[in-house]
Amino acid sequence: MPDTPTITTQEEVMFFDTDCGGVVHNLAYLRFIETARTRLATQMGMNLREMTQTHLFPALLRTEIDYRRAAVLGDILEITGGLESLDRLRFWCAFRITRPSDGSLIATSRQQLALVRIPPGKPERLPAEWLEKYSHLQKKHERRNQG
Amino acid sequence: MPDTPTITTQEEVMFFDTDCGGVVHNLAYLRFIETARTRLATQMGMNLREMTQTHLFPALLRTEIDYRRAAVLGDILEITGGLESLDRLRFWCAFRITRPSDGSLIATSRQQLALVRIPPGKPERLPAEWLEKYSHLQKKHERRNQG
Amino acid sequence: MPDTPTITTQEEVMFFDTDCGGVVHNLAYLRFIETARTRLATQMGMNLREMTQTHLFPALLRTEIDYRRAAVLGDILEITGGLESLDRLRFWCAFRITRPSDGSLIATSRQQLALVRIPPGKPERLPAEWLEKYSHLQKKHERRNQG
Amino acid sequence: MPDTPTITTQEEVMFFDTDCGGVVHNLAYLRFIETARTRLATQMGMNLREMTQTHLFPALLRTEIDYRRAAVLGDILEITGGLESLDRLRFWCAFRITRPSDGSLIATSRQQLALVRIPPGKPERLPAEWLEKYSHLQKKHERRNQG
Repeated sequence: MPDTPTITTQEEVMFFDTDCGGVVHNLAYLRFIETARTRLATQMGMNLREMTQTHLFPALLRTEIDYRRAAVLGDILEITGGLESLDRLRFWCAFRITRPSDGSLIATSRQQLALVRIPPGKPERLPAEWLEKYSHLQKKHERRNQG
Repeated sequence: MPDTPTITTQEEVMFFDTDCGGVVHNLAYLRFIETARTRLATQMGMNLREMTQTHLFPALLRTEIDYRRAAVLGDILEITGGLESLDRLRFWCAFRITRPSDGSLIATSRQQLALVRIPPGKPERLPAEWLEKYSHLQKKHERRNQG
Repeated sequence: MPDTPTITTQEEVMFFDTDCGGVVHNLAYLRFIETARTRLATQMGMNLREMTQTHLFPALLRTEIDYRRAAVLGDILEITGGLESLDRLRFWCAFRITRPSDGSLIATSRQQLALVRIPPGKPERLPAEWLEKYSHLQKKHERRNQG
Repeated sequence: MPDTPTITTQEEVMFFDTDCGGVVHNLAYLRFIETARTRLATQMGMNLREMTQTHLFPALLRTEIDYRRAAVLGDILEITGGLESLDRLRFWCAFRITRPSDGSLIATSRQQLALVRIPPGKPERLPAEWLEKYSHLQKKHERRNQG
């Protein structure tokens, strides 16, 4: 069975995640996703401590996020996501933020990334082993582009 | 000539806007846009200090952002944007972040919003005066949906 | 034996915690402490979800923080702390951030707080049960003031 | 007359600066001070864009901040501060955050810094020209230490 990298993280909503509207601020949801995506990258073989040596960083090309329901102070949120598709230069991840206590869907997000060497800041080809290991996701990506 | 609300703000990239990749962190661009959008709202007649009395807040429904080029510490960035379209319940804004020193386009973003009363957290109709004043933008929105 | 509330939390250094100097940004350490202190408050009987009902919030009066060593991307940091002393209106907490992998002391901090009802924003007396339960810490506070 | 570097900056309180207590979150005040201090550094001859070349960064050693009054959404705050004292390896800055609309003092802060080359992360001597130019502040520092 093909291996699809997935991740689940948990966040408890803190004061600094909320604003005076009484709900979680939109920037906080992206920080939660940031943490989940970084742990997904670790799982796919990218080591955070090595990045500062290799200067090869996952760089966001695009973020889409839909805010569906407001979370509040003290909520325990679950962020689940994974690698959705990839081609030779870019990959897409998708994430869902839910509140398990009442089953609410809080937000959904898709992000497109590349691996960029800084400097000079140019995207590099994704590792050959990713294209092999996740070839089932590569096909999916091609179909989407033809659609 | 119809009135289209637009805004321009400026940000100087600070240490807290950057990360150890040496460039501006993706969350910082959204904070810059947040500030521009809040000033746009003020210009459209929504007063920040009144919001905490009326409990009627502009709430993000969706964000799309494309990161096109990396900005670095000390860059002066310009955020320009405006109201793009609206219907009775929602409105779209669009923003561009540029670096005037070399004319670079750093990021582009579109955001969909509603006016939400908190509590109970339900969207309300946009002000009748917006629909009148920005009727030229309302048509554009309808065309997009039919496209 | 008297009960002294203490807390230990863990943080993995993410990109958004660092800056282009290559190390953790000073604001991130305070966010780590914020999370630890909020969990300490929960342990002392203050429920996050109740605060938004009672409008009684722990409010910072003063922060002191010494940055002793720089942490970097991917570090696992441990934040330990607890209630240090209290009088009828205020309490002090103290925190240490360490990096267990090499035993480094990263930062130390002390914070003075009150319980404030918002509105009107005035400090209230600390709960009588705190003064009883933590009477051994109250004496310590008095001694410090005489010193 | 001796030259004492001072700075004044302005911030308008945005949603992301506030929390669900309805007031500005404590981390936001430190971000405001961060911006003021960075502009002070620029004025003292440290260029942000050069720092990433020279790898010589101003690094915080200690922060003290007293939160005196709560600011709210839409407030215009003024941050004033300057160089307070220095010795061969360290310097202190002091800042005040006020709300000009009603003359409120919102917060006061003192910060101790050094100039650190990263890597290796060791403090360097302050520039000789600082010690000359700000010799009147150096004396003040010595007196404090003897006090």
